[in-house]
Amino acid sequence: MFPVLSGACRAPGRRAMTDLAILAGQAGELLARLRARAPRVHCITNDAAQAFTANVLLAVGARPSLTTNPKEIRAFVGGADAVLVNLGTLDDQRSDAIGRALDAVAGDALPWVLDPVLVNRSPHRADFALHLLERRPAILRCNATELETLRALAGHGSLGEVAASFGGTIAETGAKDVVCDVERTILLENGDQMMTRVTAIGCAQAAVMAALLAVEHQPFLAAASALMMFGVAGEVAAAASAGPGSFAVQLLDALYRVDALDLARRARGGG
Amino acid sequence: MFPVLSGACRAPGRRAMTDLAILAGQAGELLARLRARAPRVHCITNDAAQAFTANVLLAVGARPSLTTNPKEIRAFVGGADAVLVNLGTLDDQRSDAIGRALDAVAGDALPWVLDPVLVNRSPHRADFALHLLERRPAILRCNATELETLRALAGHGSLGEVAASFGGTIAETGAKDVVCDVERTILLENGDQMMTRVTAIGCAQAAVMAALLAVEHQPFLAAASALMMFGVAGEVAAAASAGPGSFAVQLLDALYRVDALDLARRARGGG
Amino acid sequence: MFPVLSGACRAPGRRAMTDLAILAGQAGELLARLRARAPRVHCITNDAAQAFTANVLLAVGARPSLTTNPKEIRAFVGGADAVLVNLGTLDDQRSDAIGRALDAVAGDALPWVLDPVLVNRSPHRADFALHLLERRPAILRCNATELETLRALAGHGSLGEVAASFGGTIAETGAKDVVCDVERTILLENGDQMMTRVTAIGCAQAAVMAALLAVEHQPFLAAASALMMFGVAGEVAAAASAGPGSFAVQLLDALYRVDALDLARRARGGG
Repeated sequence: MFPVLSGACRAPGRRAMTDLAILAGQAGELLARLRARAPRVHCITNDAAQAFTANVLLAVGARPSLTTNPKEIRAFVGGADAVLVNLGTLDDQRSDAIGRALDAVAGDALPWVLDPVLVNRSPHRADFALHLLERRPAILRCNATELETLRALAGHGSLGEVAASFGGTIAETGAKDVVCDVERTILLENGDQMMTRVTAIGCAQAAVMAALLAVEHQPFLAAASALMMFGVAGEVAAAASAGPGSFAVQLLDALYRVDALDLARRARGGG
Repeated sequence: MFPVLSGACRAPGRRAMTDLAILAGQAGELLARLRARAPRVHCITNDAAQAFTANVLLAVGARPSLTTNPKEIRAFVGGADAVLVNLGTLDDQRSDAIGRALDAVAGDALPWVLDPVLVNRSPHRADFALHLLERRPAILRCNATELETLRALAGHGSLGEVAASFGGTIAETGAKDVVCDVERTILLENGDQMMTRVTAIGCAQAAVMAALLAVEHQPFLAAASALMMFGVAGEVAAAASAGPGSFAVQLLDALYRVDALDLARRARGGG
Repeated sequence: MFPVLSGACRAPGRRAMTDLAILAGQAGELLARLRARAPRVHCITNDAAQAFTANVLLAVGARPSLTTNPKEIRAFVGGADAVLVNLGTLDDQRSDAIGRALDAVAGDALPWVLDPVLVNRSPHRADFALHLLERRPAILRCNATELETLRALAGHGSLGEVAASFGGTIAETGAKDVVCDVERTILLENGDQMMTRVTAIGCAQAAVMAALLAVEHQPFLAAASALMMFGVAGEVAAAASAGPGSFAVQLLDALYRVDALDLARRARGGG
């Protein structure tokens, strides 16, 4: 049985731990590379997340595009450096657009991130997500409930097949974040509970993972670095805010300003 | 003729007045209950209102979901504690989703709120809204112009039938808010003119009414409490802001922080 | 060859320069007129821009509506004073709605603004934009890359025909903005680089141009005034912000507060 879809992300002893200080240094380098290259990230994401996701990408230095029109999706993906597929607002048009986008992704060998938001609330969406895993996202970003839904749906019998066709990195977000692939795992403990009071923060985290995939070929590093940036920025933002409104504003400012030194100083997590 | 669709909300003498101090106390209790239970509210709402509505619900302690996909709507409504139907962005997909959502609402006996936004601008939408009233929303939230459009469209002859099939609470929002049902009425005078300078505040008020319906079986109390919370939070926000941008941010913070004592101290209105 | 679609906006010597001080005075008058009349602006715009565009219009004193439902679009345009057509999220429904909206615009002789966002990324969208130019927008708002895409697509041979059927004002936005029509040109140098870090600012600029067209019959003045307001407000906002999150908030506040004196004092640009 493949560990990454079986909850084993929470049992880090089975894989080698990644050193937090080394990761923080790598995350700082990735952030600098991201800002220098300003990659284009095409995001197929839910209506409620579009503006915030675009603003987060602009804040960290990437260039977002957002169309979900099936007729235009190949052209937009063709001009992108990485792609995000978020399953919110999963109407027929978006399903169609996602299929075409992933055809283009495969043709151009682009990295992509899957965010199966709220699959626990909709069997239709969960089925679709499981199907998309077969198209090998570099990173699967979701929370514990969503991950468990996918694992249970795949079943113990067929999990190996699902995982074999997936074979990427899982970023499970929550009060603490866990990132793992077949070789490594890391627990990330930065962040603030206020991050649960602003919509689309998880969606935006997945978008930043996609942006980092455009400048880093190791999905594990891209996923862990994105979550470390958000966690550290979230703490900076929480210290300067009085509620979820000011927190969201401060988070964008903090993502714009966070640097390698902040990450090195503030990163928490590990075993 | 049924009074609540005839403008009689503005003629409170015909019904018993609700004591403001008692209402403020009840609103404080509802707010505590809302935060303790964190109900799930499924919102079918317009594109421009989705993110702000979700952020308002998260700020007050509820858990929003937002899909408008007809294939998923039953599953999402099935997992919700209350539902909001807002008629903005009323395309065919949303019309279809609304019909299916209300079938599920009826099956599960869930409370729901109707927000017939801008029916005064579109005969198509006004017809649809009138049809939806027959499906008995617990609360109809709209402004005076929208309410008059619905009343005129129903006509004096058929208004009784419409009202009989509706029979809920009307929350008419404006510079002053009026809430009434067949037995009671109350005028609420909190708020700030800056609330007219931020899009989707009315939509978000209706969403909070839905959230309160999940923890309070009397629609009148849910509607009046939601408007009192917004009015008081709006005053707090206005005192701390320099324009509509900072006002919207401060409003989210104030909704997150407002408590029973604030409501008791600041509530204004009555006869 | 018609100069305005040939890049000649950047060669102002070919047309009379508009005096900046006079323009600033006119912009101040337009702003006062806008706030006094509160025109209705119907915006067909992309999903990610809807909320911010509505909030910008409310901040400057206009009244936005946003539906993209083909069945309602005539009714909404019929009640509007000006229209914005932005080509983001250009799905079949929006294409249909745009066609119907422009039929209504032509019937009512309403002014409208075309914002061909990201035509450089999608041949489908570029074709559609070129077709829309034949329907004579009062103002074409775009950046240099988008303008060059349209110019190249029209071709030197047929450019005269395109331009003859268009014949309006071009507002080319960037680090510096250039506004021109067949007779005049002006370079506007206000603004801040932070405006590139918030999504939908260009979309919102086009919406304010539409709002000003409702109170000013000269498209050149409406376009240049809108960009001057944004440029000045952007500088005020940048001085009070620490990143793109607070900048967007401060920009809305600054647009709400900017007045004729601010424009007269701060306007920069000219030859």
